[in-house]
Amino acid sequence: MDLGNHPTVESHSDGTVLTSAPQDTPVDRATAAARRVLEALLLTDRANANLERVAEELNGIAEHLEQHAPEVRERMVDMWSGEGVTRHDPVTGPENAIAPPLVLAGMADGSVRGEVTLTIPYQGPPGCVHGGVSALLLDHTLGVANAWAGKDGMTAQLNVRYHRPTPLFRPLTVQGRQESVDGRKIHTIGSITADGEVCVSVEGLFIDKKVPRPR
Amino acid sequence: MDLGNHPTVESHSDGTVLTSAPQDTPVDRATAAARRVLEALLLTDRANANLERVAEELNGIAEHLEQHAPEVRERMVDMWSGEGVTRHDPVTGPENAIAPPLVLAGMADGSVRGEVTLTIPYQGPPGCVHGGVSALLLDHTLGVANAWAGKDGMTAQLNVRYHRPTPLFRPLTVQGRQESVDGRKIHTIGSITADGEVCVSVEGLFIDKKVPRPR
Repeated sequence: MDLGNHPTVESHSDGTVLTSAPQDTPVDRATAAARRVLEALLLTDRANANLERVAEELNGIAEHLEQHAPEVRERMVDMWSGEGVTRHDPVTGPENAIAPPLVLAGMADGSVRGEVTLTIPYQGPPGCVHGGVSALLLDHTLGVANAWAGKDGMTAQLNVRYHRPTPLFRPLTVQGRQESVDGRKIHTIGSITADGEVCVSVEGLFIDKKVPRPR
Repeated sequence: MDLGNHPTVESHSDGTVLTSAPQDTPVDRATAAARRVLEALLLTDRANANLERVAEELNGIAEHLEQHAPEVRERMVDMWSGEGVTRHDPVTGPENAIAPPLVLAGMADGSVRGEVTLTIPYQGPPGCVHGGVSALLLDHTLGVANAWAGKDGMTAQLNVRYHRPTPLFRPLTVQGRQESVDGRKIHTIGSITADGEVCVSVEGLFIDKKVPRPR
């Protein structure tokens, strides 16, 4: 992440929202609706006789959106322009229907945290969050914690421990905090808790380097 | 996973498909179309004047699907019925628009593998797969490798190493293999390679226990 004018614990106050919260714009509303569709597709009656027509309508919408899309290269430059907070990632991106989306805020104590309730699309074991989804949320949260601390990089290693099943349908607290910086090595930890109990904890090693933004 | 009649390396031949490949059914076609919509929403022109109407249409479709959905508890019993291969998970599930979906096959040498090309919804660093998405794919693949080996369980620990950026838009090979079983502890490894080079490797520790299926 290009930290340019990105908020850090040094420059910003307790509770600063670090991700791009959903806005009342057409693209955010359409993405929220797509999120609702993908969940409803998992829940609806498999024998629903209208699923054929739903498929046709969704393909029609996709075709329209594709016809109004610039070249991918060009779109990627646009995606990555701006102040360092992106809107498209699969964890916090309000424009990405895969993202719950998780909203993370920076705390005065140096940590970042957010609350999220996950539902059926994120299921692993029956009624529980998929272990890989927890790893996805935590990897991203550690990256945001690094940016809040003022020094970030790319994930080199992620050690995830699963202490107990993480429940669906219940509020989860996702947290991260940079522990130390040793030259180019950055150590960051995090956790997912439900009802005050740690379900998943993580230790990450990050290296201070970047993939350049497309221009 | 209830291994009941689940295929294993002992009982099945090289190349047995272990996940539920997309079928030519209305629900799979509708989910594939939803996947196309969520990608197109990330790519389309942000100034597209019709996004407002797209949001309305998608909400209309979601409402219809929700009106034809049974109670979540009831639907979950149905989701988890059958022979042990589910269709709804966020990695291989053809009925889950979050899933690419990855299709995994069991090999006679005991490994499982699949090929997948990931696009913009799975982006982390510019042009690269999100590190957490790689962890998600690998966690799931190790679970499938355990089932193929004939003894599976829940993830207790996942150690993921990132060797080089994992590219979007290029075929990736995702592999897993059970290394050893020591009482209730199961050790499993895996990797994601692109153009023959390892991008991500993983070591997983699984514990032989299950969350019961809903009834």
